[in-house]
Amino acid sequence: MISVNGTRLRADIEANAEFGAIDAEDGRGRSVLVGTEADRGAREYLVDRLEDAGLTVRVDGVGNIAGRWTPESADPDAAPVAAGSHLDSVPEGGIFDGPLGVYAALEAVRAIQESDIEPDRPIEVVSFTEEEGTRFDPLVGSKVAAGELAVEAALESVDSDGVTLESALKSIGYRGSDRLDAAEWDAWLELHVEQHTVLEERDVPVGVVTTITGIARCDVEITGEANHAGTTPMGDRHDSLAAAAEFVLDVERAAKEVVATDSSAAVGTVGSATVRPNGINVVPGRVDLGLDIRDVDPEPIDALVDRARKSLARIETDREGISTDIDRSFDVRPVEMSERCRNALYAGSDRADIGTTELHSGAGHDTMVVGRVTDVGLLFVRSRDGISHNPLEWTDWDDCAQATRVLTEAIAELALE
Amino acid sequence: MISVNGTRLRADIEANAEFGAIDAEDGRGRSVLVGTEADRGAREYLVDRLEDAGLTVRVDGVGNIAGRWTPESADPDAAPVAAGSHLDSVPEGGIFDGPLGVYAALEAVRAIQESDIEPDRPIEVVSFTEEEGTRFDPLVGSKVAAGELAVEAALESVDSDGVTLESALKSIGYRGSDRLDAAEWDAWLELHVEQHTVLEERDVPVGVVTTITGIARCDVEITGEANHAGTTPMGDRHDSLAAAAEFVLDVERAAKEVVATDSSAAVGTVGSATVRPNGINVVPGRVDLGLDIRDVDPEPIDALVDRARKSLARIETDREGISTDIDRSFDVRPVEMSERCRNALYAGSDRADIGTTELHSGAGHDTMVVGRVTDVGLLFVRSRDGISHNPLEWTDWDDCAQATRVLTEAIAELALE
Repeated sequence: MISVNGTRLRADIEANAEFGAIDAEDGRGRSVLVGTEADRGAREYLVDRLEDAGLTVRVDGVGNIAGRWTPESADPDAAPVAAGSHLDSVPEGGIFDGPLGVYAALEAVRAIQESDIEPDRPIEVVSFTEEEGTRFDPLVGSKVAAGELAVEAALESVDSDGVTLESALKSIGYRGSDRLDAAEWDAWLELHVEQHTVLEERDVPVGVVTTITGIARCDVEITGEANHAGTTPMGDRHDSLAAAAEFVLDVERAAKEVVATDSSAAVGTVGSATVRPNGINVVPGRVDLGLDIRDVDPEPIDALVDRARKSLARIETDREGISTDIDRSFDVRPVEMSERCRNALYAGSDRADIGTTELHSGAGHDTMVVGRVTDVGLLFVRSRDGISHNPLEWTDWDDCAQATRVLTEAIAELALE
Repeated sequence: MISVNGTRLRADIEANAEFGAIDAEDGRGRSVLVGTEADRGAREYLVDRLEDAGLTVRVDGVGNIAGRWTPESADPDAAPVAAGSHLDSVPEGGIFDGPLGVYAALEAVRAIQESDIEPDRPIEVVSFTEEEGTRFDPLVGSKVAAGELAVEAALESVDSDGVTLESALKSIGYRGSDRLDAAEWDAWLELHVEQHTVLEERDVPVGVVTTITGIARCDVEITGEANHAGTTPMGDRHDSLAAAAEFVLDVERAAKEVVATDSSAAVGTVGSATVRPNGINVVPGRVDLGLDIRDVDPEPIDALVDRARKSLARIETDREGISTDIDRSFDVRPVEMSERCRNALYAGSDRADIGTTELHSGAGHDTMVVGRVTDVGLLFVRSRDGISHNPLEWTDWDDCAQATRVLTEAIAELALE
């Protein structure tokens, strides 16, 4: 019997929320950008808590923090079970996105330590650097741990002021050495707030993620001819914004059709549009659009990119003087969560007697990256109204505790294998 | 017989082009913003030329420059015939837009002085301050002269750095006194480059403007809900950019329909669009659009604004969670050129034996403002490829001279009445 201490978990999350805390009219917000004093404080608090629980703490070359517990019952050379998330936030973000997963993993270790379980494997609590990508590139820490990105290359990335990740980490004392290697883990689990309303709608506190959607991003350029809005007759125009409007509606229509026929998880979004010269009295000469397409299967993603290309070709044909270009600049394949980890999470919810459901994740997480090198599982806990990246982000403390119970049972099971 | 000196006119325009001259890869450009050293230079050169021709120069409270010639044959108390344009330019603009009209008016006076014509009225050569609206509000000088804007209010207008028009004018020594009063003029004529291709297409050097189109401008806000592009299913979205796309296409369709049925001069343009938060991974929460509608008649303008409102109402009905707002923030009624002035320009082209045509102006000019208080006429000269506000703006020197001949004949006729 494992007993999770919800009060201790809440105390950690609330203590962590003080670092970078902002004055929010409603809710409770924080801004914890990598390499700031808020980040230093949050990291120091975590390292202290890990050491209090008897874990051996390492900081790697890009500031990833890992605390390892090697129980007396375990083979110290066995591949560990790892769990965690991240401590950084978006500007004026919420207090759960990231920290909940880190402190739930720590609480799991403490609860197992206090139980009669005798794990066969070490357990590692991990906080990855720069998941959000607010100051530097997103997912830097997990990409280094998965061997996708070299430490030296990661450290050279610069913020908007030209400050390198290396100097930002050095300034707070968290430019460590070596590299955390996720491929050495037997399994990885992450608990994260859902950031959407599926769990609320289904009235269950936690959900086991089946797949993290793949993402294709395309940069689209639509070029016409800038001209005087007063002196250029309607018939002589090459209006790039009107052409772009057709494209935006084509993307929406295509995504809705795919949802209705092939894949209910598909989404297609034109999220950004930059118009030039963007003067009220000038026929727009050029529009740059950002297209984001996601699905749990790669085929509908490719089909939607293809439909976007066909839409542009049609617009070029229909509208004289319009030329277009599309560049598929970013591509992440869908990542299926491992059956072994999903089963451990289901079994954990059974043992803890907590209702669960399955759902996919439309957002990327560190787990997406770690999943390329080891078995992974992702557990969602419901977030109020689905609001996230906002001081109004909220997960009830009771839901936090229940989700941590499920996570703890799953970690314990995986550590016994 | 009046003999216009094209060489003298060209020398003035080329000398004026040196002030604020820019290095352009192709063509010949200048940047003459109000209150800069380039502006001071251009103004001083003009004042010298006016005085060389024996004109009495005044500078009014907002820097409008007027040089009056009172011929011995004239009643000094008779209402003068005035002609001119402006010396300011857009950044990296061309050398004809504005200066041609000012120096053509001066050349007209010089040519009449050298002829055997004995005018009954004084003739005034005018350069208005800040026609373009690049640094301060547009049409400031003509609005003050037409009594639409008080001198003190005009002087308080500020540029993007918070510098007032008053201090900008003082810094170059052109904050004069009193107010040039366009209502006291018997008539006003302006020669301007066409900035479009109608005259080129009709193969005539000059055209008599019938009407300056009215303009309605509307600020349109389309509000949906910003949301995560990965986690928000297609069916749960309130996408303000997709809604805006429908509006852009509705405006284009409505304007084309009006052109095909009611009024060939009608134009409707969504020239600007600002998307928030404008992130590739965020469903757009709000789009602000700038709508510009013009026509020679007020009814089609009102009809198009009405169709824009109806489009928004339909979009609100069709798309759940979308709200819209439209504010008709700027309105200029179409201004018909006076029959008396148009006839004088036609008669002038007959006497000078220069082919002409009639056309409307889609762009506003100082004449639009002056036309509210006295009889006005606007003469266009063809501009190569219709290019303007660009160093490639060009009007052949021979066309400049021919247009100035027509203007001179018309001024002479009006001054004899």
